[in-house]
Parts: sequence; C-alpha cells; structure tokens
Amino acid sequence: MPRDTVTAAVLLIGDELLSGRTKDANLGHIADRLTAVGIEVREARLVPDVEDEIVAALNALRARYDYVFTTGGIGPTHDDITADAVARALGVGISVNDEAVAVMRARYETLELNEARLRMARIPHGATLIDNPVSAAPGFHIANVFVMAGVPRIMQAMLESIIPVLDHGRPVLSRSVRVDTGEGNLAAPLKAIQARYDTVSLGSYPFQESGRFGSNIVLRSKDEVALEQAEAEVRAMAADLVAMDLPAPKAWT
Amino acid sequence: MPRDTVTAAVLLIGDELLSGRTKDANLGHIADRLTAVGIEVREARLVPDVEDEIVAALNALRARYDYVFTTGGIGPTHDDITADAVARALGVGISVNDEAVAVMRARYETLELNEARLRMARIPHGATLIDNPVSAAPGFHIANVFVMAGVPRIMQAMLESIIPVLDHGRPVLSRSVRVDTGEGNLAAPLKAIQARYDTVSLGSYPFQESGRFGSNIVLRSKDEVALEQAEAEVRAMAADLVAMDLPAPKAWT
Repeated sequence: MPRDTVTAAVLLIGDELLSGRTKDANLGHIADRLTAVGIEVREARLVPDVEDEIVAALNALRARYDYVFTTGGIGPTHDDITADAVARALGVGISVNDEAVAVMRARYETLELNEARLRMARIPHGATLIDNPVSAAPGFHIANVFVMAGVPRIMQAMLESIIPVLDHGRPVLSRSVRVDTGEGNLAAPLKAIQARYDTVSLGSYPFQESGRFGSNIVLRSKDEVALEQAEAEVRAMAADLVAMDLPAPKAWT
Repeated sequence: MPRDTVTAAVLLIGDELLSGRTKDANLGHIADRLTAVGIEVREARLVPDVEDEIVAALNALRARYDYVFTTGGIGPTHDDITADAVARALGVGISVNDEAVAVMRARYETLELNEARLRMARIPHGATLIDNPVSAAPGFHIANVFVMAGVPRIMQAMLESIIPVLDHGRPVLSRSVRVDTGEGNLAAPLKAIQARYDTVSLGSYPFQESGRFGSNIVLRSKDEVALEQAEAEVRAMAADLVAMDLPAPKAWT
C-alpha cells in the first residue's frame, strides 16, 4: 500500500543559472514527472558552484523532505564539485568507484580514460550508481539524495531510471476551470468555496487573451469525491459570474 | 563611486511552480537584468503559497544578501498571501494603503473597488509602492525586500522601475570561447589556466551539435585585464586541442 504523502525538494546547482546565461529547464520537468507519480515537490533552491553553499542547502533539504534531487556539477572539469559536496554533506569519503570506471571504460572504448574523465568516476562511499544511458558519467544516490546531470536530456534519462525505485504517495489530482472574468470579481465566491473544502486547494491563475481578462482556477486534492464536488461549485460560480455580465476589467484583476 | 559587490537573492512564490503546472519564466529574466547592472544573484528559492514557508525563506535570504526580490502572490484571491507573509517576516503591521487605493481607483474607473480588489491595496506598514504600469495591483519594497507580481509581463515592468533606485556594483564581465572537443580533453589544461587566475571564474558548459561534442568555456570577472589575458589563454588552448586531433568522443565528456 503506498504511503499517503511523499515529499521532495530539488536543488539546482550551477553559476550559469544564477547569472542568467542558462535558463533552467530542469525544475519544471522534474516537478511534472514527480507530481505525476505522487511525489510532492515542496521546495526548490538554486545555488552556485560553491561547495559551502551546496553542502548547506543539501543538509537543510535532506533533513526535511523524503527525497532531494540535484542537477548539475557532475562533469569532468574543475567547476564540477557536486560529488565532493555531497560526500562532505553526508560525512562520507569519496574516491574513484570501480563500477563507474568499468561503465566508463565500456563507453569510451578507444578514448583515453585520463585524470579528468576518471574524476567523473569519483563517487561518495556507500552510494549506488544511477545509469546514464546518454553519456558516460553516472549519477548516484546515497541516503535520500539523488544526484543527476545538468544537461536536460541526460537528467531526464536519469530521472526515468530513478522513478521506479522511489516510494510513491497517493497522487494529487487536479482539475482546471476557466472563468471569463477578472480575479477581482471571482475572489469572494472562490474564497467561499475554498472555506467549504479543507481537503481541496484552490488556486487562481489570471490570464489575458485577445484583450480580455480571465483566470484559470486550478483545484488540487487527493480526495476525488471532494475534488469533483468543488469543481462543480467552481463551474457553477463561473456560469453565475458570466451571467452577471459585470463590467469588463481593463486590467488583470 | 559604485560599490564593488552588490548581492541579491530571488524568492519565487507559488504552488503552481512546484507542481509543474507553470514553468517559471521570471528567474532567468531577473538574473539577466540584475547581472547586467552589476548586481550578483547568489541564490534563488521556490516556495509554495504557505505563509510559514515564505516567512522562513524571506528571513533567511534578507539577512544574507543586499536585496531580495520576490515574485508572485500579490493578487486579490485567497491564495495571494505574499504581502501578509512579508509583514510578518519584518515584524510590521499591514493594512489598506491610501496611496495604493488611489492608484487602483484611478485605474479601475467604473469597476467596483470591492473587498477582493481592496485586498491588493493591503501593504505592510513602512513600505513604498512599486509602480505597476500594466495592471492595478502595486508591488512594494520594504527594507531590502522588493515584492513583485508573478505574471512575467507585469514583473518585468516592475523590475525596470526598481532598477534605477538600486545600488549597483561593478558589473561582472563575461566572455565565451567555443572549444570543439569533449570536456574530458579540455579539463586538464582548463584547470591549469584557472589556477593562474584567481580573479577570473572559468566554467565549462558542454554541448552537442550535429552529433559532435564540444564545450563553451565561459570566463567571468570584474577585472577586464585579467579577463582578456585568461581569454587569450583559453583561445590558445582551444586551438592546441583542435590541432591535436584527439579521438572524437562518442559522449558528452
């Protein structure tokens, strides 16, 4: 029987994400995939390639959530320091891992397994490798920490190999209802609906389309019956508001 | 004379960013703009619409960095709780702000300024409004915290009105050099260059293009002379590596 709630945090590592040079594309994907399998992402942090920062963030997150997923910093260059930071955070040693070397030797074939490439085989003691079907460098997991590559295509492949071994909670179900009026008009009736459903979370996400304003109401719950009842109420609210033909807002709200 | 270093953190607020429903588009933009004006984004966090989480993250970040920029949670619906969380974090009261009401009354014209819309005028005591040229709800800043909308177009407009009033540090200059070989080949000479320049940060960002692997080396520094010297060394390294005609890697590294 699955646990009711399984939580996770995401730790994105890399100077390039904070300088703006690279726009992160990993968090959204990880959030989508984990949400779909019943793991709730509760927090995310972005830190630079600075060991003290990685260690501090990792220790804060791994103490608090069931799982922590990191991206970035596992390549062969001097700025790839994630494995060392993870080892330090967990208080374990780190050295070249025979299994990782064997995987890389098979993949590289004629290439020299030089010091830089061997650096990618440095894995914290006690960790299990995560298969990398795209590239050579393995990811790894140790305790509740999963260390993945930063290149999206590689990260995505690693995540798919991780998901089957994770505990999954009951998935959060969601529904979306479009309401064609400004948030300022729907806020009061929406709040009244929220007050009647303590197991359903209602969020309002405004949009603009062809000069008209509206909002998508997103309902989220693990209780399908309550979710459907709340959805019916939101749909009735939307119809009532449109029938009232309120003055069209000139702004978002 | 500008300060040498001005630091910032970004706090992105919203359940929808952690469920994957909305892919954040704000951090990359904020990072680009602040980097361009000499403000270094050192950390970012994403938290859900939960007051305790917003308060804890805000207090951690505002104590540590010169500025904190938040996005999201300033609309009229019940899930918009950023203003209350900021007031609690800073230990100040919050109530309907006359100036914000006047701004909204001018904008809404014929619309009713109902309780929900007035909710957007609730501003922590001691805060200064941030103009919102797109929509009605103002942002605000109090102490070193700048509270902005979550809708990208509105956030961007607010940010532009904030930037002129900020302290700016000396900008970090950057250069990028493309190297057409795998990271495993360039790691050792790149590390040697890094060891000679303690004021220049060298990052390696691998790419794949038409089946061939390479890496963009990004050099960042406030010292233009050192930056140019290091760039010349990286360019020489790139030429040497290509001339060596090393076996083409079959993988990223």
